[in-house]
Amino acid sequence: MIQNIYIIGVGLIGGSLALDIKNKRPGVKVFGIDNSQDHLNQALELGVIDQKATLEDLDQADLVVLAIPVDASVQLLPKILDTITDFALVADVGSTKVDICKVVENHPKRRNFLAMHPIAGTEFSGPKAAVKDLFQHKTNIICEVEKTAFKLQEKAVNLFNDLGMRMRYMNPESHDKHIAYVSHLSHISAFMLGKTVIAKEKNERDIFDMAGSGFESTVRLAKSSPAMWTPIFKQNKANVVDTLEDYIANLTHFKTLIENDDFEGVYNEMKDTNYIKQILNGIQ
Amino acid sequence: MIQNIYIIGVGLIGGSLALDIKNKRPGVKVFGIDNSQDHLNQALELGVIDQKATLEDLDQADLVVLAIPVDASVQLLPKILDTITDFALVADVGSTKVDICKVVENHPKRRNFLAMHPIAGTEFSGPKAAVKDLFQHKTNIICEVEKTAFKLQEKAVNLFNDLGMRMRYMNPESHDKHIAYVSHLSHISAFMLGKTVIAKEKNERDIFDMAGSGFESTVRLAKSSPAMWTPIFKQNKANVVDTLEDYIANLTHFKTLIENDDFEGVYNEMKDTNYIKQILNGIQ
Repeated sequence: MIQNIYIIGVGLIGGSLALDIKNKRPGVKVFGIDNSQDHLNQALELGVIDQKATLEDLDQADLVVLAIPVDASVQLLPKILDTITDFALVADVGSTKVDICKVVENHPKRRNFLAMHPIAGTEFSGPKAAVKDLFQHKTNIICEVEKTAFKLQEKAVNLFNDLGMRMRYMNPESHDKHIAYVSHLSHISAFMLGKTVIAKEKNERDIFDMAGSGFESTVRLAKSSPAMWTPIFKQNKANVVDTLEDYIANLTHFKTLIENDDFEGVYNEMKDTNYIKQILNGIQ
Repeated sequence: MIQNIYIIGVGLIGGSLALDIKNKRPGVKVFGIDNSQDHLNQALELGVIDQKATLEDLDQADLVVLAIPVDASVQLLPKILDTITDFALVADVGSTKVDICKVVENHPKRRNFLAMHPIAGTEFSGPKAAVKDLFQHKTNIICEVEKTAFKLQEKAVNLFNDLGMRMRYMNPESHDKHIAYVSHLSHISAFMLGKTVIAKEKNERDIFDMAGSGFESTVRLAKSSPAMWTPIFKQNKANVVDTLEDYIANLTHFKTLIENDDFEGVYNEMKDTNYIKQILNGIQ
């Protein structure tokens, strides 16, 4: 039975997990661990966690969830595995999976680790960003499931099912390659759109009256946390550079069509891309 | 008094205007004109318009709203002005303002035209996309207001105020330059994101299970109508090419930072762009 859950990193993802676990499993005790005492106190006051804890307490854990920036996860995970009992499971929720799987591939407690990535989130961060039901109907990608002890993965998957997630299984290399396209590139696209518009318009503040909901939704991800995203781009460097090269080539081609007055070509580019409607219908 | 309003183009914008006018001004009769008989019949069945009409009927109009693609508007506007009475007003709602103002600058009925751009919309199109209250709290940019007869503009502005719009006045050149950044670039950014991801992933359909709400909102505008957007990019070619050059340069710089392992630089780019939060708060 999972009784004591320790959430390391009580921000958007860790905090939202804590809220849902407390809601769905009233008997469970949720402990919070965070570098920031402010965040820990906030999480306690907001009722996100039941109690504050430290890394030294992890020998009491049935489940540890690692919800911190991916570079910190890679550093911390081996030490956490050293601390926990043979009957505990550590699951991480990071947006890259190759490096974290590699760092523990020869760890004696590799079977006590589950590499996963719940595809859920918002552009906000910190304990105040924690919301209920964030994981309802969301995909949770699990990597190298065969390397995790069956009884431990079963307990964890049951819990995540209760939170509304559906599981998909994938190897870490495929995960990191595809997530670069469907998630990491979207973030860079939004950040650079925000940068471009700010650079042009920052001396004309009221010009933003002209911005409608289209700009707002396209640029939304540019509110995201640099502390979380920098290590993701670092760990997934090769794939992210590939996606950026494709994206820049497509933008350059579109610009050339406009410059050459090939507006039939411009029309066809957009017409073909309208296919995204079917794809997005599939997501919903 | 505005009694007979003729909406040319009963799609997303024209249809939504018709719905709100019928709601706020029950005494007004709303006529619909459209190249597509299907769309006209749909608009009638959906209660978007009161009655079908043709261009020959425009001598009965108190107000004509031109809500068709911007290239068609530029062609049609002079003929409409030729048809209407001295007491009628024609307002267009297009996303570019330089060409339409130029085509009627020497027209004897220039004072019967109001160039405007309500900054509102969704990614959908056609009469079925028409929704109530689309213009609530939205900005309506009016260009060359001094060239429109005062009594006519006053009547129109009263009506648009009733629909929830706030008016802003701007010259056509400034409008087209700034709107390229805050609207046209967002659309190209989304279309090319959609294209890049589709090209990479189209043979692996279930990969889109990995796409979360972040991808969905960033790519949303790639559902937009090519028939509407192609002439916008054509009319605003110089400004759109400028914005694309800036955007591509920023993306290329970001890619170079990653390639050079300058992750402090990557962090700072995102940190600086987080300033978009304050800007978006100002919009809401």
